[in-house]
Amino acid sequence: MSESKEKVTEISQLGEFGLISHLTKEFPLTNSTSLLGVGDDAAIIDTTEGKEILVTTDLLLEGIHFDVRYVPLKHLGYKAAVVNFSDIYAMNGTPRQITVSLGVSARFTVEHLEQIYAGIRLACENYGVDLVGGDTSASRTGLVISITCIGDVDKGKAAKRSGAKETDLICVTGDLGAAYMGLQLLERENSVAAQSGDPDFQPDFSGKEYILQRQLKPEARKDIIEKLKEAGIVPTSMMDVSDGLSSELLHICKSSDVGCRVYEDRIPIDYQTAIMAEELNMNLVTAAMNGGEDYELLFTVPLIDKDKIDKIEGVKMIGYITKPELGAAMVTRDGQELPIKAQGWTAF
Amino acid sequence: MSESKEKVTEISQLGEFGLISHLTKEFPLTNSTSLLGVGDDAAIIDTTEGKEILVTTDLLLEGIHFDVRYVPLKHLGYKAAVVNFSDIYAMNGTPRQITVSLGVSARFTVEHLEQIYAGIRLACENYGVDLVGGDTSASRTGLVISITCIGDVDKGKAAKRSGAKETDLICVTGDLGAAYMGLQLLERENSVAAQSGDPDFQPDFSGKEYILQRQLKPEARKDIIEKLKEAGIVPTSMMDVSDGLSSELLHICKSSDVGCRVYEDRIPIDYQTAIMAEELNMNLVTAAMNGGEDYELLFTVPLIDKDKIDKIEGVKMIGYITKPELGAAMVTRDGQELPIKAQGWTAF
Repeated sequence: MSESKEKVTEISQLGEFGLISHLTKEFPLTNSTSLLGVGDDAAIIDTTEGKEILVTTDLLLEGIHFDVRYVPLKHLGYKAAVVNFSDIYAMNGTPRQITVSLGVSARFTVEHLEQIYAGIRLACENYGVDLVGGDTSASRTGLVISITCIGDVDKGKAAKRSGAKETDLICVTGDLGAAYMGLQLLERENSVAAQSGDPDFQPDFSGKEYILQRQLKPEARKDIIEKLKEAGIVPTSMMDVSDGLSSELLHICKSSDVGCRVYEDRIPIDYQTAIMAEELNMNLVTAAMNGGEDYELLFTVPLIDKDKIDKIEGVKMIGYITKPELGAAMVTRDGQELPIKAQGWTAF
Repeated sequence: MSESKEKVTEISQLGEFGLISHLTKEFPLTNSTSLLGVGDDAAIIDTTEGKEILVTTDLLLEGIHFDVRYVPLKHLGYKAAVVNFSDIYAMNGTPRQITVSLGVSARFTVEHLEQIYAGIRLACENYGVDLVGGDTSASRTGLVISITCIGDVDKGKAAKRSGAKETDLICVTGDLGAAYMGLQLLERENSVAAQSGDPDFQPDFSGKEYILQRQLKPEARKDIIEKLKEAGIVPTSMMDVSDGLSSELLHICKSSDVGCRVYEDRIPIDYQTAIMAEELNMNLVTAAMNGGEDYELLFTVPLIDKDKIDKIEGVKMIGYITKPELGAAMVTRDGQELPIKAQGWTAF
């Protein structure tokens, strides 16, 4: 929010309905199921034989879920949309439509909202999703972003949290902990900037582009869902890693009434994540297990799918599902079993 | 929020996931299309042959859309759900599922949230809707309620804003302006209470129960949608009256590229609304045309349906659709034509 020299249009100049049509005019409907978009009492979505509908929603509040002092508004819009797409992929589905509601306080101008919507539009283009509704209203206080995403999945093929079975393999995509380390970096540079008192302070992000991008512009694993489908694999359970691997593993164990073992030395971690943890003197495995906001996929598959999984790039087997009596534990490098505890980021 | 002598449970005692399961445990899934509800990455909704899906969403912010000083939390929950159902009915559809996201500031306890959810549950029971998702998070500031409603409608039978045709009859259900007058009453009594400085001040609402109820506990016109279906009527256009009749008429005229004439002496107004307007020295017709929050249905039907409409109790014909060149106007009791202007309540 440092674009003070740019054009400034007060929201009141457009009014509520003018604002909505201004912000949404460059969102074409591209999905065949999007029958009616923004501008009526409700959007109309066609149904397709053999499909079930998926619905997920996220409420993002300034000061709790994001900080506009160091998150560019376009990135914020992009991320707000993508994290919803991620929830649909995590059901083994495809996101098709979103609605976006914004609550904006007086310090926001039309140009600020244009940036948020530019980010949402880019996300919609990248993932083939249509904006079909929502509203914009004043907020007494901070920025509020509420997004609902509608998707579809082949009947009976949705991957819930509750289907993991004993001996299933536990798989995770990409690498973990980078988004959390990116957040630590942003917070450190922000506090250095504040202490320096220099308005032209330039943070030093060189060599740390990956962890920054993971925090500011995460991607949802559309590619993995497509590869699983091609390989004929339906995960027995699946979630996206938003609160942290520990928290998600416990969700799956509780919902499926199973236990699990994951191996410390199998947790995928990028070298930038490791370097940043070293720099900040933080425990790397703790960051990877509890960091959150990675939006990677955590899923389980039957043992019989092991060879197929081996062939999919970007997926790593990190452990296996056990009887419930054995509980959820991490096996350390020296063979010890440490109970997994949820230390995931929580909004309270 | 004056229940300070009641039991107090801090939200942090339950944690985010504990809180959600505590608040949602008494919401059974009753619709056959609700395949999976709260507790996964997304809800799963079955599709039905011959149906289209409707999606609407509303973001309600404390201090902008409601004031907890004089709105009981249970009523707030009820109304927040019902206004979404109303949007689905306004498409000629049936609401089936909702998701509810809450942002709550530190001054709210678990018991406060239970009241909000009790209101939502009552609304869900009354209208046959299932709660299937949502989340709850901390808010730095006020209470935030974001509800998305999913409904369905027979393929091709959705009533948009854009289908009104010249000579169509304009109909409205119930009566208008009462919710607005109820709000005026609440605000007056609240300011009298503040001025009196008496903590035991009892507002005087006798003889004003109807307008109060219209403001605090509005109902959606499920009954009318059912009667229209029984009568074989598909409105050419329809909206619910949330921002005020003037504003909604202009939406239909703009979307349908038509004009309209409505007769001042046909606008349905309850006598409590009239008495309150008199007491507050406000123009009654202005209140009825621009008040908003009535959640009645405004719709148009072909002339040929006139006899059928005459037989439906609770529906009143107030005018007709014209060529676009004639604009939108109200015909006063003395035969003058006054252009209709949007003075509806706006959130900016």
